[in-house]
Amino acid sequence: MQNKGIFPFTERHIGPSLQGSRAMLAAVGIPSLETLISQAVPKSIRLERPLDIPEAVNEAEALAELSAKMAQNKTHKSFIGQGYHGTHVPAVIQRNLFENPAWYTAYTPYQSEISQGRLELLFHFQTLVTELTGLPVASASLLDEATAVAEAVGIAYRHHREKRTRVVLAGDVHPQILDVVRTRAEPLGMSVNGGAINAEVAAIIVPWPDTYGVYRDHSTAIQDAKASGALVIAVADPLALTITAPPASLGADIAAGSMQRFGVPVGYGGPHAAYLAVADALTRLIPGRLVGQSVDSKGRPGYRLALQTREQHIRRDKATSNICTAQALLANMAVSFAIWHGPQGLQAIASRVHSQAVRLAAALEAAGIGLAGKRFFDTLTVDVPGRAGEIAATAEKDGRLLRIIDENRLGLTLDETTTEADLQALAALFGAILPDDTDTRLPGERRADGFMTQEVFHQQRSETEMMRFLRRLADKDLALDRAMIPLGSCTMKLNAAAEMLPVSWQSVANVHPFAPADHALGYKALTADLETWLAEITGFDAVSLQPNAGSQGEYAGLLAIRRYHLDRGDAHRDICLIPESAHGTNPASAHMAGMRVVVVACEEAGDIDLDDLKAKAELHGANLAALMITYPSTHGVFEEGVKDICAIIHAHGGQVYFDGANLNALVGLARPGDIGADVCHMNLHKTFCIPHGGGGPGVGPIGVKSHLAPFLPGHVELNTGHAVSAAPFGSASILPITWMYIRMMGANGLKRATEMAILNANYIAGRLENHYPVLFKGRNGRVAHECILDTRVLKESAGVTVEDIAKRLIDYGFHAPTMSWPIPGTLMVEPTESESKREIDRFCDAMIAIAGEAAKVASGAWPKDDNPLVNAPHPADDVLADDWSYPYSRSEASLPAGPSDENPKYWPPVSRIDNVAGDRNLVCSCPPMQAYS
Amino acid sequence: MQNKGIFPFTERHIGPSLQGSRAMLAAVGIPSLETLISQAVPKSIRLERPLDIPEAVNEAEALAELSAKMAQNKTHKSFIGQGYHGTHVPAVIQRNLFENPAWYTAYTPYQSEISQGRLELLFHFQTLVTELTGLPVASASLLDEATAVAEAVGIAYRHHREKRTRVVLAGDVHPQILDVVRTRAEPLGMSVNGGAINAEVAAIIVPWPDTYGVYRDHSTAIQDAKASGALVIAVADPLALTITAPPASLGADIAAGSMQRFGVPVGYGGPHAAYLAVADALTRLIPGRLVGQSVDSKGRPGYRLALQTREQHIRRDKATSNICTAQALLANMAVSFAIWHGPQGLQAIASRVHSQAVRLAAALEAAGIGLAGKRFFDTLTVDVPGRAGEIAATAEKDGRLLRIIDENRLGLTLDETTTEADLQALAALFGAILPDDTDTRLPGERRADGFMTQEVFHQQRSETEMMRFLRRLADKDLALDRAMIPLGSCTMKLNAAAEMLPVSWQSVANVHPFAPADHALGYKALTADLETWLAEITGFDAVSLQPNAGSQGEYAGLLAIRRYHLDRGDAHRDICLIPESAHGTNPASAHMAGMRVVVVACEEAGDIDLDDLKAKAELHGANLAALMITYPSTHGVFEEGVKDICAIIHAHGGQVYFDGANLNALVGLARPGDIGADVCHMNLHKTFCIPHGGGGPGVGPIGVKSHLAPFLPGHVELNTGHAVSAAPFGSASILPITWMYIRMMGANGLKRATEMAILNANYIAGRLENHYPVLFKGRNGRVAHECILDTRVLKESAGVTVEDIAKRLIDYGFHAPTMSWPIPGTLMVEPTESESKREIDRFCDAMIAIAGEAAKVASGAWPKDDNPLVNAPHPADDVLADDWSYPYSRSEASLPAGPSDENPKYWPPVSRIDNVAGDRNLVCSCPPMQAYS
Repeated sequence: MQNKGIFPFTERHIGPSLQGSRAMLAAVGIPSLETLISQAVPKSIRLERPLDIPEAVNEAEALAELSAKMAQNKTHKSFIGQGYHGTHVPAVIQRNLFENPAWYTAYTPYQSEISQGRLELLFHFQTLVTELTGLPVASASLLDEATAVAEAVGIAYRHHREKRTRVVLAGDVHPQILDVVRTRAEPLGMSVNGGAINAEVAAIIVPWPDTYGVYRDHSTAIQDAKASGALVIAVADPLALTITAPPASLGADIAAGSMQRFGVPVGYGGPHAAYLAVADALTRLIPGRLVGQSVDSKGRPGYRLALQTREQHIRRDKATSNICTAQALLANMAVSFAIWHGPQGLQAIASRVHSQAVRLAAALEAAGIGLAGKRFFDTLTVDVPGRAGEIAATAEKDGRLLRIIDENRLGLTLDETTTEADLQALAALFGAILPDDTDTRLPGERRADGFMTQEVFHQQRSETEMMRFLRRLADKDLALDRAMIPLGSCTMKLNAAAEMLPVSWQSVANVHPFAPADHALGYKALTADLETWLAEITGFDAVSLQPNAGSQGEYAGLLAIRRYHLDRGDAHRDICLIPESAHGTNPASAHMAGMRVVVVACEEAGDIDLDDLKAKAELHGANLAALMITYPSTHGVFEEGVKDICAIIHAHGGQVYFDGANLNALVGLARPGDIGADVCHMNLHKTFCIPHGGGGPGVGPIGVKSHLAPFLPGHVELNTGHAVSAAPFGSASILPITWMYIRMMGANGLKRATEMAILNANYIAGRLENHYPVLFKGRNGRVAHECILDTRVLKESAGVTVEDIAKRLIDYGFHAPTMSWPIPGTLMVEPTESESKREIDRFCDAMIAIAGEAAKVASGAWPKDDNPLVNAPHPADDVLADDWSYPYSRSEASLPAGPSDENPKYWPPVSRIDNVAGDRNLVCSCPPMQAYS
Repeated sequence: MQNKGIFPFTERHIGPSLQGSRAMLAAVGIPSLETLISQAVPKSIRLERPLDIPEAVNEAEALAELSAKMAQNKTHKSFIGQGYHGTHVPAVIQRNLFENPAWYTAYTPYQSEISQGRLELLFHFQTLVTELTGLPVASASLLDEATAVAEAVGIAYRHHREKRTRVVLAGDVHPQILDVVRTRAEPLGMSVNGGAINAEVAAIIVPWPDTYGVYRDHSTAIQDAKASGALVIAVADPLALTITAPPASLGADIAAGSMQRFGVPVGYGGPHAAYLAVADALTRLIPGRLVGQSVDSKGRPGYRLALQTREQHIRRDKATSNICTAQALLANMAVSFAIWHGPQGLQAIASRVHSQAVRLAAALEAAGIGLAGKRFFDTLTVDVPGRAGEIAATAEKDGRLLRIIDENRLGLTLDETTTEADLQALAALFGAILPDDTDTRLPGERRADGFMTQEVFHQQRSETEMMRFLRRLADKDLALDRAMIPLGSCTMKLNAAAEMLPVSWQSVANVHPFAPADHALGYKALTADLETWLAEITGFDAVSLQPNAGSQGEYAGLLAIRRYHLDRGDAHRDICLIPESAHGTNPASAHMAGMRVVVVACEEAGDIDLDDLKAKAELHGANLAALMITYPSTHGVFEEGVKDICAIIHAHGGQVYFDGANLNALVGLARPGDIGADVCHMNLHKTFCIPHGGGGPGVGPIGVKSHLAPFLPGHVELNTGHAVSAAPFGSASILPITWMYIRMMGANGLKRATEMAILNANYIAGRLENHYPVLFKGRNGRVAHECILDTRVLKESAGVTVEDIAKRLIDYGFHAPTMSWPIPGTLMVEPTESESKREIDRFCDAMIAIAGEAAKVASGAWPKDDNPLVNAPHPADDVLADDWSYPYSRSEASLPAGPSDENPKYWPPVSRIDNVAGDRNLVCSCPPMQAYS
């Protein structure tokens, strides 16, 4: 029961007060919110009934309800392994990073100058990976181990100009990796199997160790691969790499794996960061995000996302990776774990785990039990003819889960959390007794010291230093805990603390993704709720929560369409229509799903050109697979003709894929499924409150109509397949965030949030349109939940670029809106419903002040090449310099809105970062200490 | 089992690495730590064996062990009330304040300029209390409800110049309040009873409502009190005050109570903030901390601790309150709760609770059950002749705890967390059925709106705003999460995250202090461990964990001595010897314990003057009660003759009270009990890692020799008495912090921490002695765990005061050391063991640079009245000003150590605060909005 009279969560989530929203309505000249919505949202698509979502409860009630639900999970100690390991999250990292909004509410670090903290830590992550793998270039980071291997295959595919179509397995990778790699390879016409290595082989995959825990001798396969020009992809355990030879020394061109066991809870399968490292020659083929070092305008070192031109929004229909969201927060946790322990600490952990495994192996051998191999790190595969189920059941009674490989074999994987008591209990299961064995069973020689010699891995050994290190980095960045982040299309809304608390619960964090079904009844209930609610919200018949990023959702959606057509014998249907205004991931996903992209023109106002659409649909009718459409459009407008568009596609036998990036403008007001979509992805990290984490994690579920339901992603652990993620429910452990949000908002709250998001956007459009033309309005002059401000007027009048404005906003204490997308020279502003009128006004005031500054440039009061806009942002060092030769004052530089107690100054740590210099001289990891001497 | 080779917690807690400590030893010219310790610590007191403390475990193991222990607690829903209520901690406050090191690691806000954030929030707390009570002046804050009422009685006592000795109870206060008030009144010769009001009555105590939940008509008693000049003390529930008449309107001169139910978990009794508010005429008598508004040197408003001259370190032997530590963190949680809900929200909560109580009362009445009174807020006392135990047992089986007043009466107290299901279950216990009753049963008219009209209570209604509000305030302050706080005598060491995590556990937070014993078995085990360990560490036979601040520990210790003498018929023994170098609380506590203070002289070197001690002991021999001694001395030195001193006192029949403020220099090396102390208090918030919370909470247990054990504090709920705190175990819910620390350190770690604290202090003394004479060294030229730097050399040479240095340190990014105590013109520096060599060097570099700056003043390069020292600190607004007429540069002002990526600039929000102006024109709450119009 909601406490009567006490502010319900909806009023906590929504920024403007009643008073504030009235003032905003008055400012835009509209009597009521309902009037605004009826003007902005076409009547033809409106949902005329409330959503069928349970009535809202307050935060204490929701927490109690979820807690009871998740208490149904059993948190047995897992020895299942298979890519997911027990680990101790260091408390200092849990509290100061994982549970700190300064870290988790940050956006993707596209604006380098206010992202130096997380860029630095991600840079250290890359360095860590290069040190562990011995390969020179690593990205930061990939979504999970399975997709990382699939991306590695993608590199090989591109490396061979898409001409080699075989991938050879040199050994047994984990089943879920194989499943995802095959899912991804199939639409590209690639096969993934064993067999001889020949000139058709793009790459071989070397598991290090294999899914049975065994290191085998792959030297012949590697030699053959080298001889035939195939790339060598090693799938390697990073903890084992601290005491075994790095993949590079084995001849690997690429290494991939999961960093989960570096202090990230298993969380029923995710989110965790995966790593990918490559040889120098493959640098420009690496997908995802790469942090590079560059310099700022004063020559200070600064970090940035490098080689952004490689990203899919430029490659578009040529892309073979659609990767966007990374696992920034988890990558930062993993590298923090490495910084905390340092190389000696990591080696000590690895050595301890290995020596436990050696003792257990010796015990089993002495008891006459057969093991799968001689060389291993932490995993034993045990021969127990016919007795696997029985032994596992005994272990389970005692609170331990083993991996049942088949009726004759059990897997036992040890980890950092394994105790002596565990070891004895495991031995006892087989009637064995632990010896004091100190041999090693590693392949080759134990890795010596001399890696991870960089200072950062040696300085934060005391907790005081570590705590301050994390705070110092966080303070460099501007996240939602300090200011609005008005990013169009990214929906940077409140991530409420009550939504976040459950992610730390043991019942959420400590469930293995492949635990028996009756161990995850809490997750089962959680995911069932979410599937039901999200289906109702979007108007679909079935939902898959597996995709762990928006891009993965897109891909899974298109794959469902592909498989639907194939199932009907329509293998020829491979044309995907995409409007030219689409998100860059759209064509990339289509390409990956084996479709050919045909671009549909847009009208000047941003709407799809209906005539062109009709023509293209007609032309490609027989082969039409799908249309991808974003709604409201990427231009921030509710197109009137959206239902007609869907009808046209359906008439030609195509399926409508609905990009859910802008779902925040629809929830409770209209449903993609009602409008005509067959499939739609949702970004839970946009619309449904999962924080951006400084660049991930994300969750990108898809909803489909019933005819597509059979083609949703499955999972090998569920005895199906076609998985797109390593774990059946992708980033399961952050799903409680969305559950809490929906449960605390209820149907009315969700609708109200959408309405307020639209009001906030229209209020901004109204306040700023006299200074910056607002591009693309709907029929009634209303925008949807975001608006596009044309800054080219300042370019014309004063030579002030959109980038100058973005960087100048930093001096005013704001993160810039989305820059130059979808239209160059514009800023796309999305305030979301969570920002208050006070903060929105502060932003508008800043934008207006900047227009005023541009006017001073235009009038000649300030030179075009020396003014606070082109010189922005201004770090403290610079404005305190003795020498000040600028035509504006220090306070105009750094306190342009005047001193304010309510809005304390944010100081950027660097001035403008030089992107070109950084790409020209790519530095994406820190050289080892030796390099300095 | 400790992970072999993995850094044990000791190495995380201790700042310097092995390498760092070697370099420090080399710098002080000593071959080994053992040599240093043997030089610094007299052999005669050394403990020659390891402490008998369990071997250390790592943080995961300690957390698992404590979690299992605390899982023995039952967290039934409590309807016991009696001053402790269920409450929902808003998640935004839990995460962003309670669990945020920026808040909990901050020090007491003595240095105003770097404490503006928490001072502002405490100022709002005071405003909240004045709004609720209607009284104009409130402090921030007191330790618990019972001691707050005792302090109110103390005000009345002082108000009547200690001449009126009766306190009259106008009604029944909670038993634990009465117990503490009587404990405190007795040594002062005061009685606390019912009876007629006459000219001997200092005050009457009006419970509002009483312990049975009933509002009675006290108007006659209040009239009588006014007529006879007695003060009226109201003990009032703050939530009820949002809908009932404020105490001031009833005629109260003083109001006191607990703010626990404003979003602070019950936590088995504490810590929570108590409030105290007084009429204008009593302002200068209010004990504890009072935040006042003043202005800085540029006229900007700024907050500070007001009327510090009232504090006991000035009043000394005249003091009647020894209060020092407040409950800053909890007061800030409580006011945040009020800011979050605002007056409407609080009224809604109160109204809901009241209407539930009304419905329950109506149900019971309809069922023919007798209730204690007609007017109530949330508590019913129910007549159940002979059946109380049986009904309570039934409720308990269903997960609910009732208050068993006696065999015929039950208490039912509702609160914010009471649900409809609870209400029905409670009614059903009595065979009653809930009606829809909407009457009120409040006394008088329901309080209208029009209070808490200040802006702050209306602006943070959305969570985004609230989160940023809390971050903004935290960012104004400099806490341990950003820099060293080298406060002598305050031991600002690491508060490790693993130590803090358990405080948030439900099993720790949700246990009522008066729950049946078998509901608190976890707490029983925890407190038993701590009592055993602390007794072993200090060398005593018994320990009481009840005192909830160091001052309370002192008081409880002296009370034990007093009662010991009384018990032996030595009522005349009332002389307490106190060295002139003692902490100011010492004489105040002695005075409160009914003792007369005789000051013992100290030698120039800071040691007690043995001859004077002998003479005084001789002179007062027959009446000697106690000696209070701090060891190592407040001058930071291990005195050689400490055992002799104890022997002298014992020879004259006195007891030795050992002030444990400097216990951090002894743990593992020497034990007060072995040296000759009979009683000693410990500050768990200094030596044992409980964070300072920005000025509380603290925990001040005492250890005693067996002959004093019968005189430790008892508790009315344990069928004993002489309590010094409201709850049997004082601030029970933060005891896990100390448990975790000791468990993770083990005997070796604790000893090593002490040794490193001494090394760090000697290293600082060594680095700085050429710039600032180090006062008071021991025999071998070694200091203990802190050192006193004489800054008067700069005063002489350059007119630079110790305050100038303290404020200038802010520009360098440091909190000042303890200023002018125990010697005016000095800085007492205590680095603790947790600071790394790197940070200590940064501090020493700053101190040396400041000496260099003073030299520039001395040489005339900078004028004496215009230099970066006298003008310090420098906020950003000032150094960015267009006009810069100072003889030093902006960067010299604000980046005196140069720009540094590793040590980012801390910006003070104000320049130097004017203390005199603030005291002259005392403003200690925000005027209501109406005042502006």
